[in-house]
Amino acid sequence: MKAEIIPVGTEILLGNIVDTNSCFLANQLPLLGIDLYFISTVGDNEKRLVDTLKRAWRRADLIITTGGLGPTEDDITREAIGKLVGEELKVDDKLWQELKDWLRRYPGKMPQSNMKQATIIPSARVIPNRMGTAPGWWVEKDNHIIIALPGPHDEMKLMWQEGVLPKLEQKVTGEVILSRVIKTFRLAEAKVEELVAHLSKLSNPTLATYINPDGVYLRITAKAKNKTEAQRLISQSEEQIQTILCPYIWGVDDDTLDSVVGKLLRARNLSLATMESCTEGLLCSTIASGPESHTYFKGGLLACCNEAKTAYGVETSIMERYGNENTQVAKAMAETARRKLKTDIGLSVGGNLNPDKNSGDAFVGLSSDKFEQTFTHILRGNRSRMKQRAVFAALFDLRNMLLEEV
Amino acid sequence: MKAEIIPVGTEILLGNIVDTNSCFLANQLPLLGIDLYFISTVGDNEKRLVDTLKRAWRRADLIITTGGLGPTEDDITREAIGKLVGEELKVDDKLWQELKDWLRRYPGKMPQSNMKQATIIPSARVIPNRMGTAPGWWVEKDNHIIIALPGPHDEMKLMWQEGVLPKLEQKVTGEVILSRVIKTFRLAEAKVEELVAHLSKLSNPTLATYINPDGVYLRITAKAKNKTEAQRLISQSEEQIQTILCPYIWGVDDDTLDSVVGKLLRARNLSLATMESCTEGLLCSTIASGPESHTYFKGGLLACCNEAKTAYGVETSIMERYGNENTQVAKAMAETARRKLKTDIGLSVGGNLNPDKNSGDAFVGLSSDKFEQTFTHILRGNRSRMKQRAVFAALFDLRNMLLEEV
Repeated sequence: MKAEIIPVGTEILLGNIVDTNSCFLANQLPLLGIDLYFISTVGDNEKRLVDTLKRAWRRADLIITTGGLGPTEDDITREAIGKLVGEELKVDDKLWQELKDWLRRYPGKMPQSNMKQATIIPSARVIPNRMGTAPGWWVEKDNHIIIALPGPHDEMKLMWQEGVLPKLEQKVTGEVILSRVIKTFRLAEAKVEELVAHLSKLSNPTLATYINPDGVYLRITAKAKNKTEAQRLISQSEEQIQTILCPYIWGVDDDTLDSVVGKLLRARNLSLATMESCTEGLLCSTIASGPESHTYFKGGLLACCNEAKTAYGVETSIMERYGNENTQVAKAMAETARRKLKTDIGLSVGGNLNPDKNSGDAFVGLSSDKFEQTFTHILRGNRSRMKQRAVFAALFDLRNMLLEEV
Repeated sequence: MKAEIIPVGTEILLGNIVDTNSCFLANQLPLLGIDLYFISTVGDNEKRLVDTLKRAWRRADLIITTGGLGPTEDDITREAIGKLVGEELKVDDKLWQELKDWLRRYPGKMPQSNMKQATIIPSARVIPNRMGTAPGWWVEKDNHIIIALPGPHDEMKLMWQEGVLPKLEQKVTGEVILSRVIKTFRLAEAKVEELVAHLSKLSNPTLATYINPDGVYLRITAKAKNKTEAQRLISQSEEQIQTILCPYIWGVDDDTLDSVVGKLLRARNLSLATMESCTEGLLCSTIASGPESHTYFKGGLLACCNEAKTAYGVETSIMERYGNENTQVAKAMAETARRKLKTDIGLSVGGNLNPDKNSGDAFVGLSSDKFEQTFTHILRGNRSRMKQRAVFAALFDLRNMLLEEV
């Protein structure tokens, strides 16, 4: 089954809101084995919406609209669907009564314009809206399904989950599509692509690579008759990727580098403290944001200048001897953080960022009572990109250390 | 001039990423008087992309694509544009050399696939990419402009601002739409709306209010033949709003609370240090992100537990006497940060967050050698929203203090 999503609303075309509905729906469809080929966003203009609906009718079996179900004049989704299927809108008495009961709970006179929201065409069934006044539509005609959902994200989501998903699951008996994301760090995208080139050529499962601040991701997508078979196809590719890219893979699916590090620290019952300079607080705030971080993270020190490093306990002589930012200073910062906060491990990041040249170096320090290590990373991009990258590099180094040394 | 945006990428159609590029671009176009009627999202499929480009060619003068400019096989935007305008892609030697120089910085062999990114068609001019390997294209042919931008948001944005906007501004004439955003803190949205109700009724300029983590914003939007006239319309409304909401207004347009505080500190030649607990590093990372923060911000201490507070120099007796988080502890934290880092001002945030109940309290402490102040703020929302709100409250308090006391 092929689907097309049609987000309706001039507020999207003016950039007043980000369309998060499409992302949510796009995530849902593969689980039902439905292919999504197009998202066609259009404004509150009836002619353009009808044209867009007609095109979707030709190239998709399932059309999902979001938005344009409100009570005002520029809400035109119902009218446009009526024109698409050649049916007239009429007020549904039962629906109108329900709407009036709902609106009675709110202050002010019952606005007559709300009657619009009680109109319906013969092919449509109402999808109830528990959160608002805009009921959805489920239209079935000539082997097509049209689902009209409201624009506000929470209303749309609830209606999808309660009123659409169970019905749609019954309808579709086709293939299931499953995805698995494998996350790597350190290798460039083209290099990753080169190493897994033989897998990229397969048509099922497919393999796609894409860049994120925390590394290059690989997405395996498999199509099959059922979940078990799709899972089996994914596992085959995943095993091969694990073998090829093993030292660079740090997580899958929803894993984040800080959650991976957090799990390792908790499993080993180790505590952590940090000191940072060029990352400007991003290291400690990233680690502290982890859901269980209070069980392993005691605190972080941000030094915006050498005096601050000294105030925290780093010996002035180290900066005098080696310079402001380098592996020696990073080592001292990690050790100072660990001693100051009496933790098992100290982690530090320092570095030199040249945002004018979009380049920089980061120095990561790791310290425990058994060992100390430092790493150097080359950074690229604007200031915020480089800071992010330095934090992820530090977490990646800490992860490796926890796996190897502890 | 009519525009159509074509976001390219199967990762959007699978719901793996939210398309924020379109929202950014949609926001930019009205300022140039360009109408956006359609956003047509399509996957990494050449036939479907060419079809979508052809339709856009028929109904728009300006086509902007985002994504599909990477080095891998599923990056097909260049090829599709070539097919649209009937031109062949050839490797540009200069571009290829630049790419090779860039990639030499990364480990591993130079992957031949990157050569793709150095190809070009005769009608295209290269838009340089300072942040990545994917150069953009500016294509002009038969009264159409096609602009191909990369998918990663930061790269796309920088390329738009530096390589596209100045050129596009020259090309387009027509009506100008200007906006001005006025930023307030502390008042609820409904209260703001009530106070400016008479201005909301105007049709030009229009006035809209919306909520942000750093307060309620008011956006004035004016349409006119030229910039001067649009500017005049905006100024009229802005003066009235300034009069009505004065004590709550802290900035306009691109102002952020940290940049406003930064300017005040620099103007008064004062230095700042912070200590925080419940905000988990967000306070220091927000302040340190300011472009000139190194001139006034010396450092920040994050305490994830009472031992950390004590390690930093807060007297244990204060927590024993008053409890872990309260105004007394906030006062001691601000003072300790100031003394430790030898700054003019110490700022602290502590608090109790109850994410299960979506509520909490934040305690802000301010300390200098002349005065000390504390503030209590009630917080609402999920954990990350409450943390953000506490940081903005602290910055708003610091701003007021800098205006009043120093």
